[in-house]
Amino acid sequence: MSQEAGPPRGYSKDALEMLARSNVSIGDRIMVHTRDSEMSGTLMPRYESADKKHIVIKLDSGYNIGIKISKIESIYKAGLHPYNESSTKVPHIAVGGIKGSLEPKLEKLQRPSLVEEDNLSLPKIALISTGGTIASKIDYRTGGVKSSLSAVELYETVPELAEYARIEPEVLMNEYSENLNPHHWGLIARRIFEKLNSEEYRGVIISHGTDTMHYSASALSFALQNLPIPVVLVGAQRSSDRPSSDAALNLIGATLFAVKSNFTGVYVAMHAGTSDDIIACHIGTRVRKNHTSRRDAFESIDTKPVAIVKGKNVIVQDSWSGREETQKIPESDIKHSRFLIKPDFDSKAALLKFYPGFDPGLISYVVSSGHRAIVLEGTGLGHVSRDCFPEIRKAMDAGLLVFMTSQCIWGRTGMTVYDTGRDLLDIGVIPLYDMLPETALVKVMWVLANSTSLEVAKSLMQKNIAHEISPVSPII
Amino acid sequence: MSQEAGPPRGYSKDALEMLARSNVSIGDRIMVHTRDSEMSGTLMPRYESADKKHIVIKLDSGYNIGIKISKIESIYKAGLHPYNESSTKVPHIAVGGIKGSLEPKLEKLQRPSLVEEDNLSLPKIALISTGGTIASKIDYRTGGVKSSLSAVELYETVPELAEYARIEPEVLMNEYSENLNPHHWGLIARRIFEKLNSEEYRGVIISHGTDTMHYSASALSFALQNLPIPVVLVGAQRSSDRPSSDAALNLIGATLFAVKSNFTGVYVAMHAGTSDDIIACHIGTRVRKNHTSRRDAFESIDTKPVAIVKGKNVIVQDSWSGREETQKIPESDIKHSRFLIKPDFDSKAALLKFYPGFDPGLISYVVSSGHRAIVLEGTGLGHVSRDCFPEIRKAMDAGLLVFMTSQCIWGRTGMTVYDTGRDLLDIGVIPLYDMLPETALVKVMWVLANSTSLEVAKSLMQKNIAHEISPVSPII
Repeated sequence: MSQEAGPPRGYSKDALEMLARSNVSIGDRIMVHTRDSEMSGTLMPRYESADKKHIVIKLDSGYNIGIKISKIESIYKAGLHPYNESSTKVPHIAVGGIKGSLEPKLEKLQRPSLVEEDNLSLPKIALISTGGTIASKIDYRTGGVKSSLSAVELYETVPELAEYARIEPEVLMNEYSENLNPHHWGLIARRIFEKLNSEEYRGVIISHGTDTMHYSASALSFALQNLPIPVVLVGAQRSSDRPSSDAALNLIGATLFAVKSNFTGVYVAMHAGTSDDIIACHIGTRVRKNHTSRRDAFESIDTKPVAIVKGKNVIVQDSWSGREETQKIPESDIKHSRFLIKPDFDSKAALLKFYPGFDPGLISYVVSSGHRAIVLEGTGLGHVSRDCFPEIRKAMDAGLLVFMTSQCIWGRTGMTVYDTGRDLLDIGVIPLYDMLPETALVKVMWVLANSTSLEVAKSLMQKNIAHEISPVSPII
Repeated sequence: MSQEAGPPRGYSKDALEMLARSNVSIGDRIMVHTRDSEMSGTLMPRYESADKKHIVIKLDSGYNIGIKISKIESIYKAGLHPYNESSTKVPHIAVGGIKGSLEPKLEKLQRPSLVEEDNLSLPKIALISTGGTIASKIDYRTGGVKSSLSAVELYETVPELAEYARIEPEVLMNEYSENLNPHHWGLIARRIFEKLNSEEYRGVIISHGTDTMHYSASALSFALQNLPIPVVLVGAQRSSDRPSSDAALNLIGATLFAVKSNFTGVYVAMHAGTSDDIIACHIGTRVRKNHTSRRDAFESIDTKPVAIVKGKNVIVQDSWSGREETQKIPESDIKHSRFLIKPDFDSKAALLKFYPGFDPGLISYVVSSGHRAIVLEGTGLGHVSRDCFPEIRKAMDAGLLVFMTSQCIWGRTGMTVYDTGRDLLDIGVIPLYDMLPETALVKVMWVLANSTSLEVAKSLMQKNIAHEISPVSPII
């Protein structure tokens, strides 16, 4: 996809008139003077439903900012000082283009060129859009957010990406992630597999709703075996057309991580903190959405992110080197292990969170409705009350696999410490160590669809496949 | 309860012989010399099943440490230097007592006196034991931990408590907390109410298993209205007779918080970090067990602990002052609001965690099995997939209340932001803001048992009663 500097898309009335007079186009680096301030950034496109009283520029911090037209005194293309001979300070009129001898000096300020002939040397990245906030805009009619931006539009709003990679965007689906299910995981896995088998990519970026992004990251971690490249899921906690959107920086971070690091496998790239300058790259099976709204909602659990992206730098974290020996796939293995896809999931597995007063009938329901496995989210080291024991026994007798994780989220199950844990082990409950409950559920669904017997399924569940079980000694 | 310096309880054979020769008793401050080191601490009692090769002393850090008898060169009562005229260095024989003119200088080293006549000026604390690790010891036969220590024994193992308060221990029940249910919450609430109505206490400490301690803390927060004193739940992540037990420091922290601060209401006191010197005091409805095994497993969610206890100091945290105006019960109100008990809970409420592939039949089961309310643990700002909508509608039609919380744990629901949230609101799902899912479940059980109608129940759920809803503006 390439983008022509065109008319200011999405702007209308006063804004359109002003931009036309100023001779600036979408994607131009511009400077805006208001009564109180001076700002420089990239002029962003707007959407039909956006209000008519603002223009939006993307600041160097990655933030988009809306500026009220009535407050604007002048707009200039960046690099052209208003008092240069080639410009004249006239309110609402910007002047000239960037050309000739000015260019080298202004390199940093120029709008990065998009995918063009001379960018063929850049690594190629597939950007697959599945929907979610990162692909959303505010519906100014209802005040809510609707999922509707395509990968193409996304790419247009973050032109910086073209500095680092040739991005090939495509829209695979358009769903909020709460509506994605195991069937969709398979679709996404298959699409990645197709693309990687048809062309050479340096990496794949999946734009995704954040609600269940960690579930999907786990699913792809199991479905795509011996991935030769990084697959990076990226989302946004604020829609892309809002001034405070984290979409741009997350996308840039995901791209830099894919292009500049040597990691293979599935990762999630999102803000590392509330400041708008660091992106954390989390292992797909070890990450969780731990805040409803903060931009740094995603956290690595019981490990650190494998890398952080700060500015243009990808900094590999110590935690990874500590895990490297046992967990990172050595370069030699990557070459020799064949890239495989196992995209099937059996959704007949249930996750049940235990609590005081829990009705053991929930277990009976799961058994009677044809489920093949239960992931219990127990308390502490992996416990449920003793009045659940009879129903768990019946589930076993009916041929279900029953697994134990902890609702504590952090830490490992430790089922030999207390009577309750030992009793559950005696009944046949299978501990899953430090596997996150969400990851455990996804893995069970995958294992059920890819095992020839319950014994194989059980053994696969207790074996580390994609960093979902840490190789540390069990706690006592 | 008072404790005489008696024979070294629980010790046998070699250990008993050595302690007898050294003339030291349980609770004495002693110094122990081994080939490699010198340690001072309080001699601890041991339990019948403990091995016979060690003595256990409690160090000043609060840690218990076991010392191998065969390595001990000498034992002395603290404060008596081995080369003092009143002592003779003889391996395995300690000498003399602490008396006369030595006393004032040795004040800091002396074993604190237990509840005696001269302590009547100290504030009185009721210590109610319900079971759990804090009341557990290792079963040396199986290597596991069994719930069996009484409050009386507990108190004996932490004699320092007598410095700060007159502790009246009692055993109410003896259960691991995964076996506690809403019926038990009522029993604990009633016992506290009885005690406070019969005598004057400065505070109540509840020793409790950690697995569901946060559920019980929530339950007591609702059941005991206008509490005139603090009720502090305290547990341990390591059993009291293990060298690394956190029981002693947690108990001391809970006691100091009860005695030295002016807070009223229900709190949880546990380690604030991995170092063994700070206890955090959390609001009962805003705390969660976030690690399976670490001593600092309990964390305040979306707020800070109200106070930390460091050494003998109780430091009130800034976070509380920020909340004070709206949340802390003013002194004047305490005097005028009558202390009430509403100890009933209706366990016909279910907590369902949503996940991709979630079977909406789980909702139907909850409806058909006579439940009166459902707390959904949705994704992100409070979402479930649209294929759950029909079953949620049926639940509404059947007269159930359906509430929404977030599995993110941190942050608030925000159900007007996305289509999904607005659709759920339209159906009649009731958002619970930043109420924790666990707290929401407990509150629903309490509200169902204490409301005259569904309308009253719904309105109580959305009203802040015990800091379970933060008084901040909703996020956008």
